[in-house]
Amino acid sequence: MKNYIKHHPWEIIEEGFDPSLNRVSESIFSLGNGRMGQRGTFEEDYSGDTHQGSYVAGVYYPDKTRVGWWKNGYPEYFAKVLNAPSWIGIHIKVQGDVLDLAACKVSEFRRVLDMKRGTLNRSFTASYPDGKTVRVEATRFCSMDAGEVGAIRYRLTPVNFSAPATIRLDIDADVVNQDSNYQEKFWEEVSQEAREGAALVTAQTRKTNFHVCTGMTYALQAGGKPVTGKVTANARPKYADNVVEVVLTEGEELTIFKYGVILSSENHPKDRMMKIGGEKLQAARLAGFDALFNAHQAVWAHTWELCDITIEGDVAAQQGIRFNIFQLMQTYTGKDSRLNIGPKGFTGEKYGGSTYWDTEAYCLPFYLGTSDPSVARNLLVYRYKHLPKAIENAAKLGFKDGAALYPMVTMNGEECHNEWEITFEEIHRNGAIAYAIYDYVRYTGDENYLVQYGLEVLIAISRFWSQRVNWSAARQQYVMLGVTGPNEYENNVNNNWYTNRLAVWTMKYTQQVADWVKRRDPAAFDRILSVTRFREHEERTRWNDIIAKMYFPEDRERGVFLQQDGFLDKELIAVKDLRPEDRPLNEKWSWDRILRSCFIKQADVLQGLYFFEDEFDLESIRRNFDFYEPMTVHESSLSPCVHVILASRLGYTEKAYEMYLRTSRLDLDDYNHDTDDGCHITSMAGTWMSVVKGFGGMRVRDGKLHFAPFMPDHWTSYSFRLEFRDRVVRVKVNRDKTETILESGEPIEIVMNGKSVVLEPRQATVKV
Amino acid sequence: MKNYIKHHPWEIIEEGFDPSLNRVSESIFSLGNGRMGQRGTFEEDYSGDTHQGSYVAGVYYPDKTRVGWWKNGYPEYFAKVLNAPSWIGIHIKVQGDVLDLAACKVSEFRRVLDMKRGTLNRSFTASYPDGKTVRVEATRFCSMDAGEVGAIRYRLTPVNFSAPATIRLDIDADVVNQDSNYQEKFWEEVSQEAREGAALVTAQTRKTNFHVCTGMTYALQAGGKPVTGKVTANARPKYADNVVEVVLTEGEELTIFKYGVILSSENHPKDRMMKIGGEKLQAARLAGFDALFNAHQAVWAHTWELCDITIEGDVAAQQGIRFNIFQLMQTYTGKDSRLNIGPKGFTGEKYGGSTYWDTEAYCLPFYLGTSDPSVARNLLVYRYKHLPKAIENAAKLGFKDGAALYPMVTMNGEECHNEWEITFEEIHRNGAIAYAIYDYVRYTGDENYLVQYGLEVLIAISRFWSQRVNWSAARQQYVMLGVTGPNEYENNVNNNWYTNRLAVWTMKYTQQVADWVKRRDPAAFDRILSVTRFREHEERTRWNDIIAKMYFPEDRERGVFLQQDGFLDKELIAVKDLRPEDRPLNEKWSWDRILRSCFIKQADVLQGLYFFEDEFDLESIRRNFDFYEPMTVHESSLSPCVHVILASRLGYTEKAYEMYLRTSRLDLDDYNHDTDDGCHITSMAGTWMSVVKGFGGMRVRDGKLHFAPFMPDHWTSYSFRLEFRDRVVRVKVNRDKTETILESGEPIEIVMNGKSVVLEPRQATVKV
Repeated sequence: MKNYIKHHPWEIIEEGFDPSLNRVSESIFSLGNGRMGQRGTFEEDYSGDTHQGSYVAGVYYPDKTRVGWWKNGYPEYFAKVLNAPSWIGIHIKVQGDVLDLAACKVSEFRRVLDMKRGTLNRSFTASYPDGKTVRVEATRFCSMDAGEVGAIRYRLTPVNFSAPATIRLDIDADVVNQDSNYQEKFWEEVSQEAREGAALVTAQTRKTNFHVCTGMTYALQAGGKPVTGKVTANARPKYADNVVEVVLTEGEELTIFKYGVILSSENHPKDRMMKIGGEKLQAARLAGFDALFNAHQAVWAHTWELCDITIEGDVAAQQGIRFNIFQLMQTYTGKDSRLNIGPKGFTGEKYGGSTYWDTEAYCLPFYLGTSDPSVARNLLVYRYKHLPKAIENAAKLGFKDGAALYPMVTMNGEECHNEWEITFEEIHRNGAIAYAIYDYVRYTGDENYLVQYGLEVLIAISRFWSQRVNWSAARQQYVMLGVTGPNEYENNVNNNWYTNRLAVWTMKYTQQVADWVKRRDPAAFDRILSVTRFREHEERTRWNDIIAKMYFPEDRERGVFLQQDGFLDKELIAVKDLRPEDRPLNEKWSWDRILRSCFIKQADVLQGLYFFEDEFDLESIRRNFDFYEPMTVHESSLSPCVHVILASRLGYTEKAYEMYLRTSRLDLDDYNHDTDDGCHITSMAGTWMSVVKGFGGMRVRDGKLHFAPFMPDHWTSYSFRLEFRDRVVRVKVNRDKTETILESGEPIEIVMNGKSVVLEPRQATVKV
Repeated sequence: MKNYIKHHPWEIIEEGFDPSLNRVSESIFSLGNGRMGQRGTFEEDYSGDTHQGSYVAGVYYPDKTRVGWWKNGYPEYFAKVLNAPSWIGIHIKVQGDVLDLAACKVSEFRRVLDMKRGTLNRSFTASYPDGKTVRVEATRFCSMDAGEVGAIRYRLTPVNFSAPATIRLDIDADVVNQDSNYQEKFWEEVSQEAREGAALVTAQTRKTNFHVCTGMTYALQAGGKPVTGKVTANARPKYADNVVEVVLTEGEELTIFKYGVILSSENHPKDRMMKIGGEKLQAARLAGFDALFNAHQAVWAHTWELCDITIEGDVAAQQGIRFNIFQLMQTYTGKDSRLNIGPKGFTGEKYGGSTYWDTEAYCLPFYLGTSDPSVARNLLVYRYKHLPKAIENAAKLGFKDGAALYPMVTMNGEECHNEWEITFEEIHRNGAIAYAIYDYVRYTGDENYLVQYGLEVLIAISRFWSQRVNWSAARQQYVMLGVTGPNEYENNVNNNWYTNRLAVWTMKYTQQVADWVKRRDPAAFDRILSVTRFREHEERTRWNDIIAKMYFPEDRERGVFLQQDGFLDKELIAVKDLRPEDRPLNEKWSWDRILRSCFIKQADVLQGLYFFEDEFDLESIRRNFDFYEPMTVHESSLSPCVHVILASRLGYTEKAYEMYLRTSRLDLDDYNHDTDDGCHITSMAGTWMSVVKGFGGMRVRDGKLHFAPFMPDHWTSYSFRLEFRDRVVRVKVNRDKTETILESGEPIEIVMNGKSVVLEPRQATVKV
C-alpha cells in the first residue's frame, strides 16, 4: 500500500517526481473517452522506467502461442489488448540535448488529474547537467465530445538561457506489447505520410487486420503569436513526424499545441482512413485547443451532474469515490453496443480481452444508476449479439440443441482465455448474464427487452444448465461436477453452491419470462419458439425436474451453505491467524497451497446471498457471512463491495466501512501492489455499489426504490443521485436525517427504511 | 489402427512406398544407441511430408514462453527435446536433377528394420520424369559399440543411363523443432569446418548452451575400388558439406560410405570438441563400415541373448514383442546415470523432457529382468542425484524441512512441465520413486543400496506426504486434497485412493528401512540422520499417526475402493456403451466432458492393486477389476499392461490377451493414430511385463522367483529369460508343460505354481 497521492476533493495530485512510482502514476493518471485511451506517460522523451500505453477500443491480437498440452475444446487463441500507436510524443532537444527527466535534475514536479474537467496537467522544472533550465506546463485530454480526438497544450519556458532547439512531433506505430513473447510486434506497416504541419500513420494488426490510422497536427505560439521555424517532415514504416527548428528566448514561453486523431477500421472504411484522418486533423486545428477543451469539459460537467457522489468530512473518501466514477465514465460511454468494459479499461494491457462477467455482476448496476437506460441496455445487447457464438462455444464442448455458454473472456463473442479450469468450468458467468437481464428489467421496468432479446438468451442459458448437470445415482439428486466458482482459489470443484443456485434460478426465471411473453405477446413468443426451436413442454419438464431435485451442499449443524462438496475437509483457519508475511497469498504462496487452503479470493456463497437475498432470512445470511467472511482474503478487487453491501444490511457497520476503504482507494493507494499494470476498472463500479447499495441500502423491489441508509462513523454526510425510470432522485444522508429529493420527473413512491413516501418534484423529503 | 507392416519374427518390413504413412514409418524405423538417435528418414532429399529428426541424449531447450496466467510456484520452463543437427544427408543430383522420391516414380520400395542386427535397410528403384532410373540400397546404424558413431552404406546404381552426378554429403545444424512457436530456432552457430573428405559443425543450444559437434567423413567405391572426383568443400553458419562430382556408369554400382560422429559437451570439453570430432571421424573411416558394423551387431547379439522373448504360433505377436524390446534397448543402455528414458526415446520430440514416472513404474522391471543390475541401479541413482533439486522443488511449493517432491517431467532434476494440475497435483509420481527402490531391492537383494542412497530418498518423500495431507475436522481423519491420480481424465480430485495408499505405504516402508539400516549399519544410519536432519522420534510419531488415521474412500456396498471422493456422483457408463464415433475420447470429446465423465484413461485404483497385490485378497481385486475395467478407455499407452497382469492373475485370460494385443503392437499398427509423432517407448516395457508378469505370472516374494504361467489360446509356446541375482533363468511355457532352465549361476530355489523347486545348472525342470 502506498500513500503518495495528495488528498483533494476533485483532483488527483502527485507532487515531486519519484521514478519508482512512475508506472503506478502512469496508470492512475490515465485518460480515455470510451473509444481510446492513454496512460499518464510523458510527452517528452523519458529513458527511465515507463510503460508508454495507448489503446483503441475493440482492437486486439489473437495470440496462438501454445505451451504444453493442448486439449480438445480449448479456445483458439488468447486475446491480447494491443498497445496502439502513440500520438502524444513531443520530443525536445535544446542545442542537441534531449529533454529527458531521467537525465535532468527535476524540481517542482506536479502531476494532476483534474477529474471535474477530465484533463491531465503536468508541470515541472528541469535542469540539464550543464545548468540549462526549462519550465514545462502540459495539459492534455482525450475528447469526450469528439471521440477520435486528443489534444495537448505544452508550454515550454527557457528559464536561464536562450538557444536554438528542435521540437519533434511524431506518430509512432512501432510499439511493442508488454506481454509480448520474444518481443514480437503486433503492428504491421500499411502507410505513412508526413508533410509540413501534419503526419499520419496507418498500421494494421497482425492476423486480425484491424487498421488504425493515427495522425497529428500542431501549432506553435509565443506571446500570443504563431511561431514558425524550419520544418522537416519524415516518414518511415510505422512512423511519421515533423521536426521544427525554433529559437528559445530566455524567459519567453513557447506554447506547443498538438492535436491527435485516432481512427479505427471498426468505424471507417480502410481505404478512406488516411483521407478522413487528414480532414479530422484539419478540423481539430481549426477549432483550436480552447474550443475542443470547452466542448470536452461540457460533457464532463453533464456527466458529473448525474453520477457524482459527495462525501463530507472525509476528503480521502471523496477523492476515492470520484476517481472510481471518473475512470468508469471515461472507459465506457454506452454509445457503441460492440464495445464493453475491460478490467483495465484504457490504463494497461493486463488481462487480455475486453469482457468478463464483471460487466454484468458489477458494472451494470453502476450504469443503471448513473446513466440513461440505453447505456445499460447496450451492455445487454452486446451479449445478445454474441448469442450465436455462445451457442457455437457450447457446441465445441459437446453441448447441443442451442445451449449457450458465454465465454469467460471475449473480444467478439469468441472465448479468448485459455485455462481449462476457467473457460470450461467457471461457468457461473453464464448465470451472471441471465441475472443481468433480470437486474436490468427490475431496475428500468423495460419489459419489452425480454420480448425483443432477453428470452432468447435465457432459453439458451437454461439449456446449458440442464445439460451441464447430471443425475447422481448415489445421491438420487442432480449434481454439477467440475466447476470453478467466483472464488478462483478453488478450481474444478463439485457442486459449487453458488453455481448450482444460479443454475436453478435461471431455469425458474426463464420460465417466468416465457409465461409472461406468451401472455403479453403471443406472436413474439411464437417467433422466439421458432427461432430457438424451443420444445417447450419437453424442455420445461426437464428443467422442472432439475429445479425440484437439485442438490445443494450445506452444513446443517452450522446452518451454512457449503461453497462446494469438499469444503469441510479443508483446515478452516481465519485470515487474521495468518502471518502478515504470508499475505497477499497470491504473491506468497504456491498455487498448490492456495488451492488446498480454505482461503477465499472473493465472495462466492456470499455472492449468491447478495444476488438472491430476498430468498433468505437475515439470520441465514448472517450465519454464512460470519462463517465465510473471516476466511476471505479479498485478493480480487471485486470482493470487498459485496461484503460492504451484506455487512451494511447486517448492521456490521465497522466491517462495512473497513471493506469500503479497500475498494474505494484500491488504485490510488496501490493497495495490492499491482496498479503499475493498470487500474482495476470494473471493480470501481463496486465502489459505487458500496455507497449506494451498501451504505445507502438502495434496492429495487416491485418497481420501487427502497433505501435503508446508515452513516459511517467517519463521515459527516454523503449524497448520491439515481437515474430511475425517467426521474432523477437525489439522496443526501446526514448524521441526523436523510433528505430525498426528486430532481426531475413525475412524482414517485419510494420506500425509506420500510416506509412508503411519495416524492414530489423539487421538494425535499426529510426523514429523521 | 493401420496394418501395413509385414509380419516377420525378426524384421519390421514396409513394402511399397505410401507417402501418407511416411511419418509413421519414420517413427517405427528409428535407430538409437542410448546416446543418440535418428528417425527412419531418407538420406537423399525428400520434398514430401517428412519429419527429419536427430536427437542427442540430454540435450534440451528450456522454453519459457508464457501464455495466460502464471501462478506462483509454476516451473520456470517447459523442456523441449531438441531436434539436433542431422548427419545422414546424402543429396544426389544427376545432370542437375535432384533425387527426390516425392518427384520420382518409385517402385520396389522396401524399408526393413533388422532387429537382430540393429540396422535400417532401405531399397528402392526411382525413375526421374525423363526416364532416368536409379536403384538404391541403403543400410545404416547407430553404433551400439561406439556410442558417438553412426554409419551409412548407400549403394547407387544407374539402371538405364550414364551421366555426371554430384553427391553432396552434409552436416546440417540449421534445424527447427516441430513444436517451435513462430518457427524459432534453438541452435546457434559456434563453428564449422569443411575440407576435402570431412565436414564438422559445432552448434550450441540457446539458453542451455549445450554444444554438439556433428561431423562426417565418407568414402566412395565402385567395383571394389575407391572412386575419386572433384570435391568442393563448403561451410557456412550451422552447415558444412563436401560436394563430390562423379560420373555414373550404366549398371555400375557406386557405393557411398558415410560416417557420422555426434559429440555432446556433456561428455567432452567444449574447446576440444572439433578436434576430438575430427579424430573420431578419421578412426571411423580407417575402421570402415564392415568393422564398425561387426562390433555393433556383436553388442546386439549379446543383448538379445539376455532379453529375447520368443513366441511360437503367432508371428505378429513375436514381431511385436521384439520390436518393443529392441526400441527399449536402443533408448537406454544404463551406462550413464545422468540419462533416462524419454517417453518417445529417440523417435520424436513430443512430450518434452526425458523422465516421467514411467521409468520407475514401467521401465524398471524390464531392465531388472533383462540387464545387469547396474542398469536398473543407475536409474535409481539418477533420482538420488536429483534429490537436492526435488527438495528445492517442494520448497518452492511451500513444503519444508527436507521434504522432496520429484518433478513430473525432468531433464536435470528441475520440473519442466507446466500444467498446475500435473506438476502440483500428480504427486503419486513421488510414490512411484519410493516404490522403485522397494522393487529394485526386492528383485536384486541389493540392500546395500538402501544404506548408500535409498533411505535418504525415502525419508524425503515420506516428509512430503506427511506435510501434504491435512486433518479433516469433519471426518476426524487425514485427507489428501487436490491431487491428480494416474487417471489424468480426472484432475484436482480429493482423496485419490491410489495416492493415499501410496503415501501411507511410503511412510511404513521408510520406517522399515530405517529400522533395518539402524540395525545393520549404525554408523551409516547416523550419517543419514545428520545429512537429512531426521528428527526420528518426532517425525515417525507424525507418520504413524497418519498411517493410523488416513482416510481411504470406498463403496462398502459394492465392496470397491473409490478412485476419489466424488466418483460415485458421476454417471457410471461402460465403455462398450459408448458410440464408436466417440472414440478415442481424447480426440472426440472436449476436455470438460472427459473430466466430468467416469471414463478412465489408465489404471488408477488398479495400479494400486497391482503394486500392493499381496495386501488384498483375490476377491477384492476381482471386485475392483470388474468395476473399473469396463469404464477404462486405455487411452494411455501405459494402461493395458497393468490390466494384463491383473487379468492374468484373475484368470480372465481372454481379457488379458485382448489387452496384450493393444500394448504389443501399439506402434507397429499405429493403434492410437499418433505414432507419426514418435513411438511410445516407455510403455514398451509394459509389453514385456505383460508377458513375464502377466502370462508368466512372475513375482518375487521373499527373495524367490515365483511363476504361475498360462498360455494364451492363440500361441503354441513362449519363452523368456530373467537375469536374477547372478543367475539367468529361462522359462519356456508350452501348451502342456513349462520348462525352467538355469542357464547360468548357482542352484536356485524358485516357486512354480505355488510349489518350491530347486533349479540346477543347465538342467531343465519340467512342470506339466
